[in-house]
Amino acid sequence: MSSLSNRQIKLAARPVGLPKASDWEAAVSVARDPEPGEALVKVLYLSLDPAMRGWMSDQRSYMPPAKLGEPMRAGGVGVVVASNDPALAAGDYVYGWLNAQEYATLKAASLAKLDANVAPLPAYLNVLGGPGMTAYFGLLDVGKPQAGNTVVVSGAAGAVGMTVGQIAKIQGCRVVGIAGGAEKCAYLVDELGFDAAIDYKAGPVAAGLREHCPDGIDVYFDNVGGDTLDACLARLAMRARVVICGAISQYNATSAIKGPSNYLSLLVNRASMTGMLVFDYRDRFPEAVRAMVGWMAEGKLKSREHVVEGGVAAFPETLLMLFRGENFGKLVLHVADA
Amino acid sequence: MSSLSNRQIKLAARPVGLPKASDWEAAVSVARDPEPGEALVKVLYLSLDPAMRGWMSDQRSYMPPAKLGEPMRAGGVGVVVASNDPALAAGDYVYGWLNAQEYATLKAASLAKLDANVAPLPAYLNVLGGPGMTAYFGLLDVGKPQAGNTVVVSGAAGAVGMTVGQIAKIQGCRVVGIAGGAEKCAYLVDELGFDAAIDYKAGPVAAGLREHCPDGIDVYFDNVGGDTLDACLARLAMRARVVICGAISQYNATSAIKGPSNYLSLLVNRASMTGMLVFDYRDRFPEAVRAMVGWMAEGKLKSREHVVEGGVAAFPETLLMLFRGENFGKLVLHVADA
Repeated sequence: MSSLSNRQIKLAARPVGLPKASDWEAAVSVARDPEPGEALVKVLYLSLDPAMRGWMSDQRSYMPPAKLGEPMRAGGVGVVVASNDPALAAGDYVYGWLNAQEYATLKAASLAKLDANVAPLPAYLNVLGGPGMTAYFGLLDVGKPQAGNTVVVSGAAGAVGMTVGQIAKIQGCRVVGIAGGAEKCAYLVDELGFDAAIDYKAGPVAAGLREHCPDGIDVYFDNVGGDTLDACLARLAMRARVVICGAISQYNATSAIKGPSNYLSLLVNRASMTGMLVFDYRDRFPEAVRAMVGWMAEGKLKSREHVVEGGVAAFPETLLMLFRGENFGKLVLHVADA
Repeated sequence: MSSLSNRQIKLAARPVGLPKASDWEAAVSVARDPEPGEALVKVLYLSLDPAMRGWMSDQRSYMPPAKLGEPMRAGGVGVVVASNDPALAAGDYVYGWLNAQEYATLKAASLAKLDANVAPLPAYLNVLGGPGMTAYFGLLDVGKPQAGNTVVVSGAAGAVGMTVGQIAKIQGCRVVGIAGGAEKCAYLVDELGFDAAIDYKAGPVAAGLREHCPDGIDVYFDNVGGDTLDACLARLAMRARVVICGAISQYNATSAIKGPSNYLSLLVNRASMTGMLVFDYRDRFPEAVRAMVGWMAEGKLKSREHVVEGGVAAFPETLLMLFRGENFGKLVLHVADA
């Protein structure tokens, strides 16, 4: 029987506004041995995602809320410690819903085997994981960019935004990123090849859009909502496509969220605004992974992770970095070494 | 030389909020004789449309603002009094931008000849005119209803809404209209065959939607914006299509217009919200007119006009009926008899 001590971060209460310490509970259990068909996984890296804030609320949405009293739902990368299923063996690297804990015992069928030689493990939580798949299908399938189009992406220094911008460049688009701070903006242009970046902390986004999108916006990929969405709506080109991927500026709102006042720009410009969820594209993930791996090999696509140390205990504080705009690249918590 | 006295209602000022008397100026001129290529038209019926409020403002939109000091822009039906173009002859009935006046001298090429035997003249401002074309292409091309879908339309007792609902029934959809007042709601169900109608003056729209759209809304055709749009967004079915045709509840707003707080329902339901303008479909109007005439002949489509008497002088007061929800069917001003 396993005697592995398993530290866990459980959701203790449904937050109002920004999650606070009392919404969490640190606990220690013993890792459960795998039953037939299961594997015991040591958690190495956990993904921290804006969508987690929605999962913490008790609201009807695209998936059930995270359960109170259980380790917080989180995707992660780990290594198999013990397997009771022929599909996995000790030493295999896997991706799955490992949750906020040090060890996870899960059905082997719910885990995807990873090749650590293709990319570093954290990249499987970024370009080759959920954010990468979101960027790929959200931009290409919903945004439908054409070469020469002007593509604007907000949250551009976040996991999804960085990849959206790079894929748009690969498609021959003019790309403008919106991010917070000079360092992030410089990186987008100098390292990732964006045509321009607008620092929303330095001045009104509308002025930046006027300067950098003289012919309007053909595709706006929205990760933030709020005033930025409104500024982009006001600048749409004819037949523009707005992809609604997220709204991080609104996730901790304690009053009604801010709807886009400028939505009638959709009418004036015969434009559309469409919501997307990456889970719908699960069957096509292999297509996207192949494309991403190819672009990475060609040096056209970078996977930048912001890895935070501190083990699983740092989960609650690390999550807040997303809502403070403190992450620079995909936010990942380093839980343990293999 | 013409000595026809021509009463005109000119736009005197750009309104703030609801148009008021001082925003208009009544004038009398003499009708201008047609130059080569022109025709002189006696105005019989003028169309009153919610979109007019937008044209009165000095804002960048899909067409230039109506000009100050000129007769207010309005579509109308008239009869040719004198023609200086071989394409038209005295006695011909025509549709065109006749504007708020008793006589219009226009390029013959800008006028469309009408057959008064096919439908009564006011129907050319309704089902066979702009509102009908808007309903046809907005519903079928943008809303893409499938048989069995639940289609909800707001402003359902207005010109566009009535036709949207009837076409949706013809497509085999379940149709729910939102309108103000018991009489209008009864008419939609009893006379036009809607499956249900929600009286927004009698109670919360959300409760009506819960009752009448148990499986959610597949297509929402929005003519009103505001709280009604939000209530419908909260009730979308998966992959729903929201058609943004207008927002009459917001056109007279003096502060920022109300954006749809529930727009993230687009994400949760992978739904889309798309703006449409009827002018884009001009090349396909004949297709729609053929369909409409056929459905009218089969008794499946009714064209109900709300004809106001009073001549062109009544234009300013009549326009306000739209924003008070006082029209019941397509609002038309009777300017003169042929």
